[in-house]
This record gives sequence, structure tokens and C-alpha cells, in this order.
Amino acid sequence: MLKGKVSVVGTGPGPVEFITARAAAAIEESDLVIGYKLYVKQLALLLEGSEKEVISSAMGREVDRCRRAVAEAKKGRKVALISGGDPGIYGMAGLLLQVTHEEETPPEVEIIPGVTAAGAAAAVLGAPLTHDFAVISLSDLLTPWTVIEKRLRAAAEADFVIVIYNPRSNGRSDLLAKARDILLERCKHDTAVGMVRGAGRDGEKTWATTLGDFSCCIDEADMATLVIIGSSKTYWHGGKMITPRGYEL
Amino acid sequence: MLKGKVSVVGTGPGPVEFITARAAAAIEESDLVIGYKLYVKQLALLLEGSEKEVISSAMGREVDRCRRAVAEAKKGRKVALISGGDPGIYGMAGLLLQVTHEEETPPEVEIIPGVTAAGAAAAVLGAPLTHDFAVISLSDLLTPWTVIEKRLRAAAEADFVIVIYNPRSNGRSDLLAKARDILLERCKHDTAVGMVRGAGRDGEKTWATTLGDFSCCIDEADMATLVIIGSSKTYWHGGKMITPRGYEL
Repeated sequence: MLKGKVSVVGTGPGPVEFITARAAAAIEESDLVIGYKLYVKQLALLLEGSEKEVISSAMGREVDRCRRAVAEAKKGRKVALISGGDPGIYGMAGLLLQVTHEEETPPEVEIIPGVTAAGAAAAVLGAPLTHDFAVISLSDLLTPWTVIEKRLRAAAEADFVIVIYNPRSNGRSDLLAKARDILLERCKHDTAVGMVRGAGRDGEKTWATTLGDFSCCIDEADMATLVIIGSSKTYWHGGKMITPRGYEL
Repeated sequence: MLKGKVSVVGTGPGPVEFITARAAAAIEESDLVIGYKLYVKQLALLLEGSEKEVISSAMGREVDRCRRAVAEAKKGRKVALISGGDPGIYGMAGLLLQVTHEEETPPEVEIIPGVTAAGAAAAVLGAPLTHDFAVISLSDLLTPWTVIEKRLRAAAEADFVIVIYNPRSNGRSDLLAKARDILLERCKHDTAVGMVRGAGRDGEKTWATTLGDFSCCIDEADMATLVIIGSSKTYWHGGKMITPRGYEL
């Protein structure tokens, strides 16, 4: 019997130039590409001219995609399961492994890391993540809001830089404002805030502000937006957001 | 006058196959490559046969490397300043920007994100970072230990997965054991712990353990090691470390 395999492939922030050589090779070597339709569309340049089967599906069909990937690999096919950013960070790696654990004879799995959305957003803003940071998703679809609140408070209390994923969950626009209010219980109004929509993609847009002035742009956040809240040490200078590591200059 | 530029290039966990196309192009297009000697050595395959000038220096010469990069760019040269992993995560991006801010007419700077050490280690271990996490460096060279302790406690209290960078600082081997003891004040003894040395590199080594049993391998940690401490939801299954996102299977 042929030996099938699922490669969970991190494709980075979007443009194919941010894909690693390893990820591109895994897609090239695969018989079948499975992914969320937006991420698959971004791979058009890589898939052009290939006879490869491509299965794309809508947001929310994550479990289906994983089950299909495992089923096809068990038939002996090489499957590239696409995950935007890094598949291990709010991505498909965990779910795929959970699905394989339902199998008596699971297929081989390889997880190929990618450039994270946080790293791409940080690069656009300057260097806000060069010291300790916490990564928090505001999506309360799979996590109780009380847990999210607790994490926001703890991260602010210990002066972490905070990266916020999914600032708008399920169409709800008030989560980010709620998070801002919680952070303002502990953080100063002049705490640096950077926001990036579509980091590294065409139409990328950035905002430079502070927690106190965040209402200037808070409603612009959408599902493709990442928000970075500085620590007490973070500052804006010359249009760049910087968290110093502590070197003497 | 020629227009110089510094590209701060993230080269990922080590092997050139984990470098993005954008990063490889920036190195290719540069007149001069500057970096920490280990990272420059890892680029041998990319630099082979080129007539490019390469300046490598020792750990601890970070400020010098940044100043040199800025000085050379001001002469009109294109400089690739190499930073392992992602240059924005405990990397060279922040320091380079700080150095440019000393200049009256700073050169153009581009920051090119890379695969982080955390992402590479997570991929090797399974999928420990698919939910909220905190990233903490134990290096007390540039950060007071009291701040590090406070962040460890806050992260454990709010049930973050915790990624520990620099588990051994300045040759001191007791920092990781101290961190473990602090975490055990709040975390259960059976909290999943994964450790990876040289993720993605030849000779990569992983350890699967728990906080309570961490003494089995805690002394194996070195400067190239990353430690991931699970949340209360993280578990080991089939040799893989998983933090479930919360999907219904």
C-alpha cells in the first residue's frame, strides 16, 4: 500500500514570497491541496499550471477539512493541508492531530511552520515584540469571555506587550472596545497601540495610536486585523513602534 | 548619491529551507551581509559562489553590528542584517531601529519576518500553541529577575501556555529550575512540558515531560533550547503535545 501523509503547511501572512522553501516544496509534492478558500486563492501563483486536485471550503469547516485530509492520506495520497500564518498558532495543526488520534492507524503527519500573523504585523509596525509578550484571541466562540478577560488583566498587570488576534469575533464589534477598557484599568492612557490590517498583503493598512486615543480607529478592526498593545516601555518614534530589549546605546 | 538600505532579515530556525523567498531575495540583492557568526554560517548554501562581502561577529556584538549596518547603508550600500528566527522577536529589529533614530538622515529600513524559534519548536512538539500563550525570556542580563518572576506568575495564574526563551542565561543553569518552582506554585504537577533543542536543525532533540517530572531533563537545556509549558488544557498524546482550540469533534 502507498504511504499517505498529511503536511500541515503554514503559508504565512499571504503573498507567496513569505512562504518558506519547505512549505512550497510540500505543496509541490502533494497530490491534493485542502484549505480555506481565501488561503488557497493566495496560492494561485504556486498552483498555476499544476494538475493537482484542490479542495477549498468556507470558514467554519475546519473539522471537515481535517477529516478529509486524514481520509485521503489513508488512501495513500500526499495531502497539503493549508493553514495561513503558522499552523501551530491558532491554526490547523492541533485540530488535525486531534483528528488523527481518532484513528487506529493514523497517517504520517508533518507540521511545517510559517511566518506568523503576529510577526508579519510586528515587522510592518517596527519592532514591538522584541521583549516578552502575550498572545490573546478575543474570539469567544470557543473560549469563555471570562477566561479572555482574566488573561487580558494578567498580561497588563505583568507589563507584557499584548498581541490581540481576532479583534472582531462572529461579527461582534464591541469585543475590542471591551478589551481596551479592561486594559485601561491597569495601563496608562499613553500606552502605545499599533494596528495592522492585512499585514504584508495588497491594501495593507496600519494605525499608530495609544490606548487612550484608540477610539480613533478601533472600529476599523476586522477579522484580518491584528492589534499590538505596548508594554510600559514601548514607544512610537519616527512612525515606528519599538519595545526596547534593554541594550545600552 | 546611491540609496542605501538595511534589510533586517529573519532567517528562521536554521536550515535554509525554512527561509522565505522574500528573505532569500533580500540576501541575494544585498552588497554586504552582516550577522552573528553562527547564523551567517547557516547561510553558507545561499552565499556559496557569491562575491558578496560578509561580516560576522560574536554573540554580544549586537550594537556594533547594527551601527556598522547603518554606517554602510549610509554609504549607499544594500545591507542584509541577519537575525535568526524572526528579527522582531527577541531579534535585531528593535535595536537596529533604535540605532537609526540616532541619525539625522537615517537610511531606509525594511524588516523581513521569519519563522520564529517558538513556531519551529511547537511544530516539532505537535501543536502546543494553538491557544493563547505568553512568551518569556529568562535572560536576566537585560531584564531584572523580579520582572521575569512577575511575568511567570501572571502567565501561570491566567492559564496561558508559556514559551520560555533563553532558559540558560550567561551560563547560569539555575534559572530554569527557579522558573519551574515558581510555576509549580500555581500549576499542577502533571502540567505538560515540552523541550526542544535545535528545532529544525541537524541533531534536533526533544523531551516530553511534565512540570513535576521536569528534573529528568531540565539540565539538558542550553542556549539553543526552547521550553513550552502547557496550560491546564494541554496534554501529551501519541508523542504529540496538544493544546486544543476548543472545537467539537
